[in-house]
Amino acid sequence: MLHVIVLFCYSLFLFVFVIICCFLFLVLLLVLFLNYIGLFFLDSKTASLSVSFAYTLPSPDLILWDYIGYCYCCCRQMLQVNQFLFLKVPLTNFRAKIQSFLEFLDMKQQGMIVESVGEGVIELAPGDHVLPVFTGECKDCSHCKSEESNMCSLLRINTDRGVMIHDGQSRFSINGKPIYHFVGTSTFSEYTVVHVGCVAKINPLAPLDKVCVLSCGISTGLGATLNVAKPTKGSSVAIFGLGAVGLAAAEGARIAGVSRIIGVDLNASRFEQAKKFGVTEFVNPKDHSKPVQEIIAEMTDGGVDRSVECTGHIDAMISAFECVHDGWGVAVLVGVPHKEAVFKTHPMNLLNERTLKGTFFGNYKPRSDLPSVVEKYMNRELELEKFITHTLPFAQINKAFDLMLKGEGLRCIITMED
Amino acid sequence: MLHVIVLFCYSLFLFVFVIICCFLFLVLLLVLFLNYIGLFFLDSKTASLSVSFAYTLPSPDLILWDYIGYCYCCCRQMLQVNQFLFLKVPLTNFRAKIQSFLEFLDMKQQGMIVESVGEGVIELAPGDHVLPVFTGECKDCSHCKSEESNMCSLLRINTDRGVMIHDGQSRFSINGKPIYHFVGTSTFSEYTVVHVGCVAKINPLAPLDKVCVLSCGISTGLGATLNVAKPTKGSSVAIFGLGAVGLAAAEGARIAGVSRIIGVDLNASRFEQAKKFGVTEFVNPKDHSKPVQEIIAEMTDGGVDRSVECTGHIDAMISAFECVHDGWGVAVLVGVPHKEAVFKTHPMNLLNERTLKGTFFGNYKPRSDLPSVVEKYMNRELELEKFITHTLPFAQINKAFDLMLKGEGLRCIITMED
Repeated sequence: MLHVIVLFCYSLFLFVFVIICCFLFLVLLLVLFLNYIGLFFLDSKTASLSVSFAYTLPSPDLILWDYIGYCYCCCRQMLQVNQFLFLKVPLTNFRAKIQSFLEFLDMKQQGMIVESVGEGVIELAPGDHVLPVFTGECKDCSHCKSEESNMCSLLRINTDRGVMIHDGQSRFSINGKPIYHFVGTSTFSEYTVVHVGCVAKINPLAPLDKVCVLSCGISTGLGATLNVAKPTKGSSVAIFGLGAVGLAAAEGARIAGVSRIIGVDLNASRFEQAKKFGVTEFVNPKDHSKPVQEIIAEMTDGGVDRSVECTGHIDAMISAFECVHDGWGVAVLVGVPHKEAVFKTHPMNLLNERTLKGTFFGNYKPRSDLPSVVEKYMNRELELEKFITHTLPFAQINKAFDLMLKGEGLRCIITMED
Repeated sequence: MLHVIVLFCYSLFLFVFVIICCFLFLVLLLVLFLNYIGLFFLDSKTASLSVSFAYTLPSPDLILWDYIGYCYCCCRQMLQVNQFLFLKVPLTNFRAKIQSFLEFLDMKQQGMIVESVGEGVIELAPGDHVLPVFTGECKDCSHCKSEESNMCSLLRINTDRGVMIHDGQSRFSINGKPIYHFVGTSTFSEYTVVHVGCVAKINPLAPLDKVCVLSCGISTGLGATLNVAKPTKGSSVAIFGLGAVGLAAAEGARIAGVSRIIGVDLNASRFEQAKKFGVTEFVNPKDHSKPVQEIIAEMTDGGVDRSVECTGHIDAMISAFECVHDGWGVAVLVGVPHKEAVFKTHPMNLLNERTLKGTFFGNYKPRSDLPSVVEKYMNRELELEKFITHTLPFAQINKAFDLMLKGEGLRCIITMED
């Protein structure tokens, strides 16, 4: 009997021990899991940073919200839809009333023409040709008064707002139910209402079905090179990501007279098309065991003079920074990153006189600068036709989205004609 | 008996289970430990970066090597000793032979005067007044030909070399045993031999016992503001670290006409002195529970126009970057970081149009630019006297080092007089 009692006590002890072990084991697993999803503190070398992400998720009120990804995040291979379709509903209900300080735009000929203007609007008149832009320029805030910034305090992109700033109301409704605005422009419709600060008056001779692509990604890439990276004639530039924005950055480099444009992309099928945009050399990181920054440094005797990052992937951002030459290299970040992405580098890469910049809409002030970009197209300095690979009627917008999602083509123009 | 067997089997099973649990528990503990010391992979968001640190440790051949920390790393509160003492040995043995392309410098009047020049040297003649600099300018490499860089490929700071570039030999010896050169200048002696690219010819009327401080940290801080941050008149600048380099950065901001100079330091005893350098407001991070970048953003309606980081601490670097205003803010890193430091920030901070730069010797090209800095002092634009808090004879160099290590005073001039 004593043996049984001893064995019983022993097994009871082991059982309790097992329970404790299992508990500790589960606690450790939980710690590891929390660490993995970023809620814990295990990485001792991580200097803690609390960064609020500028672009928050939308409220559910905004319908067809998914399109924001396709429209604003032009840093990937996206199609240019923000001039056009907003709602997949009959459009006849969308004649909004004229509001003070607002324009009422009539979209014709694949572009935007002012139909009427609100009380107090003096800069525009009915009949003016304009480009609506997802970010605005009030001309009155500290950003608009600064020569360096285009991030207007009043009209900077706001994906949450969904209403007009003036009175906090929407101008659209269906059967009495409000329909909210879309990134300040609501251009997926035949008529829309926008703030005067969100439209750029352009040369009326410019074909709206071409220059409409300047409202978003093409200007972003072009300006990233011309306004921010500012390569000199005969210098070298690396472009990370050869989608539409990256090719627009390459187009900027071509206009600046750059002699070597090195395109970096994981998708080799893009290389042939990129040659039309002046890209002279190509690197596919998949073809190399070394980091792409080392490959580029070897190709260029220490690094490129400028780099422009158009993918939004954090690894590409770091490579784009570290591939520029010490002493004078400038890296420009364009691609919109994942909200949890962290840019990391050794500070010595900066102290060796590399510069790291970011840009928003290519640093163009929408109203002040876009007219001159349109003129670049008009005097044949800038080639926009090669960006437009498809044109589809509104009825086929879903096909246009499919094209975009599959990475087929660069920009698709949507027309309002049936 | 059956009970005993059953209990025995049961306890055996539990025992095996305990062993397995313990094993798994230990494995998990090991994983956590490896992760903690940085050898593992648990942080899913850490993009791996292999960064080589530019300034390696010296070889043991170089004597009194510790002084490199006091001399080059002028990004902390250091004293200006690199004009002067190299070896704590009798100096009479150091009359080196004249070498081609080298200068033989005679140090008099607490400064440097050329005694004789090597074959082929045409830019300098005996009697010229010069400032020797730890980094050089060959005027022939891609860096020297670039308008943007001062990081000469040939004569860039090299803490390992210890010999003359021309023939790989030292010019100094004691009893037939070579004594190696010190950061290209070897100025802790009455006579030294340096490469022609490492001396800047300056106005002979300039007092050498004042302008000698321009050979290192003072130019670094001054140039960081004037050449790199480039604040405009009436703008705001934050200076991180109020040692000599930080105060030189503040002096640059004062010269540029900045209206608000915000000094940040953990040591409040420095604030009073900093007022002489034009610092108008002070923040001691110890006085606040919030990150210093948030305090500065609140003080300046969104951030300062420019910031200059002169501590070398990674947290200060991140704060200096994140405290600049979106749209136009420029942060300049000056302080030399710990070799394992990692700069981390959310890329959105860059995409919101902040710029991050680093500088080396204030982006001054030693030969081309230092003469004009001396002229700034000569025409009373730049005040150097307030940086010089002590003057000591060579015999008391250890006292000078003690002063420096204790943070007492800014710059100490060492004279060769007894």
